Amino acid sequence: MAPDRHLLTAELLSVGSELTVGETRDTNAGDLARSLTGIGVAVGRIQAVPDDLATVRDAVTAAFGRADLVVSTGGLGPTPDDLTREAIAAAVGEEPIVDPELEAWLRALWSRRAMPFPEMNLKQAWLLPSAVALPNPNGTAPGWWVDRPDGGVVVALPGPPREMRPMWTDHVLPRLFARGAGVPMASRTLRLAGIGESQLADLLGEELLRAPDPIVATYARSDAVDVRISSRDLPGATGASTATERVGAMADRLRDTLAAHVWAEGDTTWPDAVGAALAERGHGLAVVEVGTGGSLATLIGDRDWLTFSESLAVGTATAREHRTAEGLEHLARRGAELGGAAVGIAVRARSRGADTAVSIVVIGPGWAHRERRMVFLGGANGRIRAALAAAHVLLAAIRAH
Amino acid sequence: MAPDRHLLTAELLSVGSELTVGETRDTNAGDLARSLTGIGVAVGRIQAVPDDLATVRDAVTAAFGRADLVVSTGGLGPTPDDLTREAIAAAVGEEPIVDPELEAWLRALWSRRAMPFPEMNLKQAWLLPSAVALPNPNGTAPGWWVDRPDGGVVVALPGPPREMRPMWTDHVLPRLFARGAGVPMASRTLRLAGIGESQLADLLGEELLRAPDPIVATYARSDAVDVRISSRDLPGATGASTATERVGAMADRLRDTLAAHVWAEGDTTWPDAVGAALAERGHGLAVVEVGTGGSLATLIGDRDWLTFSESLAVGTATAREHRTAEGLEHLARRGAELGGAAVGIAVRARSRGADTAVSIVVIGPGWAHRERRMVFLGGANGRIRAALAAAHVLLAAIRAH
Repeated sequence: MAPDRHLLTAELLSVGSELTVGETRDTNAGDLARSLTGIGVAVGRIQAVPDDLATVRDAVTAAFGRADLVVSTGGLGPTPDDLTREAIAAAVGEEPIVDPELEAWLRALWSRRAMPFPEMNLKQAWLLPSAVALPNPNGTAPGWWVDRPDGGVVVALPGPPREMRPMWTDHVLPRLFARGAGVPMASRTLRLAGIGESQLADLLGEELLRAPDPIVATYARSDAVDVRISSRDLPGATGASTATERVGAMADRLRDTLAAHVWAEGDTTWPDAVGAALAERGHGLAVVEVGTGGSLATLIGDRDWLTFSESLAVGTATAREHRTAEGLEHLARRGAELGGAAVGIAVRARSRGADTAVSIVVIGPGWAHRERRMVFLGGANGRIRAALAAAHVLLAAIRAH
Repeated sequence: MAPDRHLLTAELLSVGSELTVGETRDTNAGDLARSLTGIGVAVGRIQAVPDDLATVRDAVTAAFGRADLVVSTGGLGPTPDDLTREAIAAAVGEEPIVDPELEAWLRALWSRRAMPFPEMNLKQAWLLPSAVALPNPNGTAPGWWVDRPDGGVVVALPGPPREMRPMWTDHVLPRLFARGAGVPMASRTLRLAGIGESQLADLLGEELLRAPDPIVATYARSDAVDVRISSRDLPGATGASTATERVGAMADRLRDTLAAHVWAEGDTTWPDAVGAALAERGHGLAVVEVGTGGSLATLIGDRDWLTFSESLAVGTATAREHRTAEGLEHLARRGAELGGAAVGIAVRARSRGADTAVSIVVIGPGWAHRERRMVFLGGANGRIRAALAAAHVLLAAIRAH
């Protein structure tokens, strides 16, 4: 029986040369990091290493010297390249033995298909004395849960996401809960537009951004500047409030301060937010763009409430004939008509020095809204920022009516 | 002047708590790993670490103890959380100073917009005595190239991919080439359309796919199925042929076998390939889509030769009135006219059982091409595949005339 060590920190190890040569992208580590963060286990490091025994062994050893929990993905296949089991065995100083139950299960997989069992696969029946096998109903590689004498835990999962994910959810998370891993935690994310990250940081102030609890962090993403507020109820802390209360109070305070810029919360994307605002009112949308290279339609994407979209180069006759604010409004109305949509937006972007000037007209049933914005940078970057500005104006206009 | 150390190994370090909490997925490390592998520099480890000064500093120190080249991404923003500069400074034991040129450049960015300069941003003008700044025309964070006394190199790049990628291509790769980094290696990638990965693997055969030199591997990507042929001239190897010759012979052989499916080579994207074919003929392009959710225009993206694009929901009056092949051709001609473009394509996608049927008409000066294809899957996946089929037909039609 392992000592009652509270599992609070983790490191993730993705094993496979296909990752370090850049031919395959690792999605497992990000998924696991998010899951662990969500149960209040702090992920201190994510590593990808090639299929090299000494490298993997040393990485495992270093990781469980720093963290309570080490989770590896990949390297559990039957080939000589798959050496995560060997590496963990070497790191914990144990000899793997063939587990009779696993061997019987594996051999049955082949005999069921009337195929000879490839003896190479026998290593998928290996187990360490200190490990239990995690069943894999979606493949031939069982996982390992290894209890360390110091109370730490090493978990080895297969690399293919459709094998890894169910094993994590069905066999690892329940064991982590049973062990009391993690701490109660809470987080909220505010999504902002029309403000740069540095302007935002100035507004929030260094004191707030450096405060240890709740943690307030800003992220410049391609579709928003995010403010993430998070907190954990650390063991032994004797505050009067819970993480959820502290995060809620801070989020409410920041929503007030940043009201003009907050357009959504959490994982909400522009298509989600615009789609929800339209759905509440039973409206469809038409988009006409001039000089943006279609950036606004690309931002909104393939949605069935977007019934019409059109993108015109600035040099086309139609674009030249609709250069004024009235012309732009006409394009918005014509688009709405062609799309049979209640709401129409027309946006025109043009270079203004090194930056981009954006004119936006949104029309709806009985209302019209015109707005101009300047956005940072020119060229393709400026056009993407023009699309973000247009989406921001569009959402505010729909919500206001 | 740094000693003449041959840069053969690298480690990648992605800095940011958004990565270790799983809020953001790291695409930079994979891109860099692929690029470095491509020039014969072996990537030994990829790590993501949180915004913690001691952790980043120790990770940098450990990495340049193991590898010739360390490349970091992220943590170059203006906020107190952005501490890659501080961490590298601590790891190499130097004090950052404000670089007057960088400071002037930064202040000009703000004064251009008549905005007060946030003093917090001044750290983006920092430089180490042993570093040179790498220009960032797409943002406010310059990168660093740091020459170590032992001949090793540390490179710090910004996190946003649209800032990182051009800096890598325009400022880091040329310096690596000038330093003679890597070993001679050759690779060619054939980009295929209209064939699935398993169909392709069957066609190539197991023997070819398991051969050690040249290595032939297949990858199912979002915009193509790729066949990658690669080989390295290892130091001391005394074969009769070079890696380039071996790869060239195999690529030529596979190009013949797969001729109907190969639409490009290397990193070529659909916009690259279509743009090149149009440019050779001095043509522009107009796109009209019905029932695709704008997937073809999104695939082609923001390009100045795409002068007109329109996407219609199937239920709109215009879409209903142009349901026949003649109607589709009319839409292609009208689009070309509105865009002032010599080439026009109209594509219509509709569900056919669990799959998607695609009708395509391409018109050019004095010619028209009509084609129908069935693509796997329905819904949004089917619409994306419909766009790929349309791009494939478009490219072949332009090239044939």
